[in-house]
Amino acid sequence: MKYELYYWPEIQGRGEYVRLALEEAGAAYLDVARGSGGSGAMMRLMRQGATPPFAPPFLKAGKLVIGQTANILLYLGARHGLAPKTEAGRLWVHQLQLTITDLVLEIHDTHHPLGPSLYYEDQKAPAKKRTEDFWDERVPKYLGYFEGLLKDNGGSYVTGRRITYVDLSVFQIVEGLRYAFPKRMKAFEKKTPSLVSLRDRVAARPKIKAYLESERRIAFNEQGIFRCYKELDA
Amino acid sequence: MKYELYYWPEIQGRGEYVRLALEEAGAAYLDVARGSGGSGAMMRLMRQGATPPFAPPFLKAGKLVIGQTANILLYLGARHGLAPKTEAGRLWVHQLQLTITDLVLEIHDTHHPLGPSLYYEDQKAPAKKRTEDFWDERVPKYLGYFEGLLKDNGGSYVTGRRITYVDLSVFQIVEGLRYAFPKRMKAFEKKTPSLVSLRDRVAARPKIKAYLESERRIAFNEQGIFRCYKELDA
Repeated sequence: MKYELYYWPEIQGRGEYVRLALEEAGAAYLDVARGSGGSGAMMRLMRQGATPPFAPPFLKAGKLVIGQTANILLYLGARHGLAPKTEAGRLWVHQLQLTITDLVLEIHDTHHPLGPSLYYEDQKAPAKKRTEDFWDERVPKYLGYFEGLLKDNGGSYVTGRRITYVDLSVFQIVEGLRYAFPKRMKAFEKKTPSLVSLRDRVAARPKIKAYLESERRIAFNEQGIFRCYKELDA
Repeated sequence: MKYELYYWPEIQGRGEYVRLALEEAGAAYLDVARGSGGSGAMMRLMRQGATPPFAPPFLKAGKLVIGQTANILLYLGARHGLAPKTEAGRLWVHQLQLTITDLVLEIHDTHHPLGPSLYYEDQKAPAKKRTEDFWDERVPKYLGYFEGLLKDNGGSYVTGRRITYVDLSVFQIVEGLRYAFPKRMKAFEKKTPSLVSLRDRVAARPKIKAYLESERRIAFNEQGIFRCYKELDA
């Protein structure tokens, strides 16, 4: 079976967490909206079927249509060795992914504090304030949490010696923060050496390395979650 | 086995989605931080064990400590008949719960657009703007989505004829929006008659009715997710 991933074709966004899992799994998939049908094919499917997703990304797996990033990863993790087999292990990894989901929304809010419907240009002053709070309070709390988990278990991967989809997502968070806030992240990441090592360990995995060097990896840009605005990195 | 729920004792907050599920299930549970140990008992457990939660709520179920509201519901749903038995059904209900998770964060952001660390009083003007956008764009999108699902399946519960934890959460969303934005919600809910019926259907279920009338149900207040600020309801 070839999976079909449906996500906005111009950005990494939330779809990227799914792409990284599919790539590490070596799973066959079609990134549908990047094909000739574009977003139109995606929007049509969104309004159909018994389980219409609220928003992209969603994954077609045979007859199943699965929405919500963390839910897609819950499904893929169980099938492709990217999560533990025990119920307790699966719940733990999923819990961590949901914590990353919260963090991703807070990252988005740094440039869109007044809501997702308005342009960044119309909320630059509040974005500056939210970004300050994000770096003062939230980044230390979130990244410190994952750094602590890595340290406590000896440090190969977040939940132990085997890679899970959470490690791929943490990699993406580090990459994204480096892109969006190069100065702030450069200073901050000195405090989280285990996270930096994890980032390097994930980037060096053969399938991930090949993916990152391929055209399948969309470049970061200012339409995605991680946006580089110089005034927010000051 | 008696469950132990750990959540802030003063508010409904994110813990309420778990409380509603435990109550509807008729499960034996202790709301730990509302006991004599207070939040201290919760904070101590948060820093211990192999799966330390990032934040409350979390549930102790025997040896398991499960964090993240939607993850707790995933676990409880499977055990107490509050989710379908098939994998496809479980993923669908969980997907809907994660959409509610997103909505809950957007509701919180109406009064805290500049971040969770600052006081509301220090962000009243941005809160006003975010609230406008929330009611213009986001409420119609989210509540319209659930209204559509209810209509499409004939309308007893969101996913069909049997109640799931998602219905309990939708009930809480309607109750919360009525509390926080009485004028706006009164006008808006005319457009979502199926959601209003669902709210009434959930409220009339014997165990939920008994819970709502008990002291176990904390009253809405201005420390929680749903806050009633007159200036935001204008």
